Amino acid sequence: MTDQTSADGVTEQSFTLGEITGVLFTPQGTTGPRPLILMGHGGGQHKKAPGVLARAHRFAAEGRFAVAAIDAPNHGDRPKDEQFIQFAADMRARMAAGENPTGQVAAMHDLLAGRAVADWQAALTAVQELDQVGAGPVGYWGVSMGCGLGVPLLAADSRIRAAVLGLLGVHGLATPAARVTVPVQFLLQWDDSLVPRDQALALFDALGSTDKTLHANPGDHGGVPAFETGDALRFFARHLG
Amino acid sequence: MTDQTSADGVTEQSFTLGEITGVLFTPQGTTGPRPLILMGHGGGQHKKAPGVLARAHRFAAEGRFAVAAIDAPNHGDRPKDEQFIQFAADMRARMAAGENPTGQVAAMHDLLAGRAVADWQAALTAVQELDQVGAGPVGYWGVSMGCGLGVPLLAADSRIRAAVLGLLGVHGLATPAARVTVPVQFLLQWDDSLVPRDQALALFDALGSTDKTLHANPGDHGGVPAFETGDALRFFARHLG
Repeated sequence: MTDQTSADGVTEQSFTLGEITGVLFTPQGTTGPRPLILMGHGGGQHKKAPGVLARAHRFAAEGRFAVAAIDAPNHGDRPKDEQFIQFAADMRARMAAGENPTGQVAAMHDLLAGRAVADWQAALTAVQELDQVGAGPVGYWGVSMGCGLGVPLLAADSRIRAAVLGLLGVHGLATPAARVTVPVQFLLQWDDSLVPRDQALALFDALGSTDKTLHANPGDHGGVPAFETGDALRFFARHLG
Repeated sequence: MTDQTSADGVTEQSFTLGEITGVLFTPQGTTGPRPLILMGHGGGQHKKAPGVLARAHRFAAEGRFAVAAIDAPNHGDRPKDEQFIQFAADMRARMAAGENPTGQVAAMHDLLAGRAVADWQAALTAVQELDQVGAGPVGYWGVSMGCGLGVPLLAADSRIRAAVLGLLGVHGLATPAARVTVPVQFLLQWDDSLVPRDQALALFDALGSTDKTLHANPGDHGGVPAFETGDALRFFARHLG
């Protein structure tokens, strides 16, 4: 583990756990149990992508949460296997040809989900053994691919008590989504060119949670407004605080 | 004007302005300009309905806003005219017969809107002349009928700079909605038995605002979660503060 503390008072600790490469963000100098947020990244991104870093720092500095981010299988510092490389090339080609990638995206998430769920479960167990995290309540934040891998995780692991999800359609996720029962804040981009609006509304609808809120904003896939980070912070404070 | 200060430090002042009957809520003992929120009530309700009172007190006590609520035409302390009484009886009969009231609701709002918009404009001018309100920024909060009368108001009066709307469909409102350009937070109840979901999504879609956020929650027309009041407070603080 390597430690590095940033100017905003957040300590970043890189870790590896078998093949899992991750980073833990905590408020500097804190000890004892605290709520933990698992933060999944989008497709093609990694555990320290700019959006993940910005959000993790704000959650740790402002919300006093611990935040754990790991590379998804075939992403970031992890090796890429042949099947993934072929899948990714096929998806890029279809998108370049103007096809909507809904089916390919769902197949890619399905390819990664089994391993990703096991990785998150192992990382959660390991991180909660650290003194500065402990066995406090746990949340999950993940949109786009982070939602595609997060829904199966939430369906499988009852340790996670609240989640921010979104930017994805129902394709391939109806069954695990129905098994999600924890409070959810669901982000939708009204003019998302990658995710058809009715598919995203259908995924929100499919979630089994009785406490779920849809936050929809104008703009394309990458255009979630900055104020939604504050809304997510308050959502986690309400459910994990 | 009659004054009454409640235990939470909010002063209520009842007022009449021609035929308009209203109430102004301000933080106790304050003077000088402050942001003002105009608060419209739902159909069959009035300026001091429990939901209006609770929200107005929180906005004044916690957000330090001034809040003005007035009775809509034919509501609260105002006389009911013959045309309204017939409309309301017809609507009740159709609903009792199991008809969806979308068309009747829209016709009722259309009947009241011209007068309601003029009332709000006069009340806004008068209230801003008071020392404890002044010419600060102005917002509007209104759902259900408060949205049906609020959309034409926002289309007509450029003094209002941000609005919380919702719990209503697009029927009869597409044209004024397109003229609304201020930031909007729009509430939708996912299982609303009075407002078809696709009609409510279409009203959100029809708003001309580039900065608009849909907040959708499970439950029926009257079941907006309490945490949405906090979200509305932060929305107004962001845009009027």
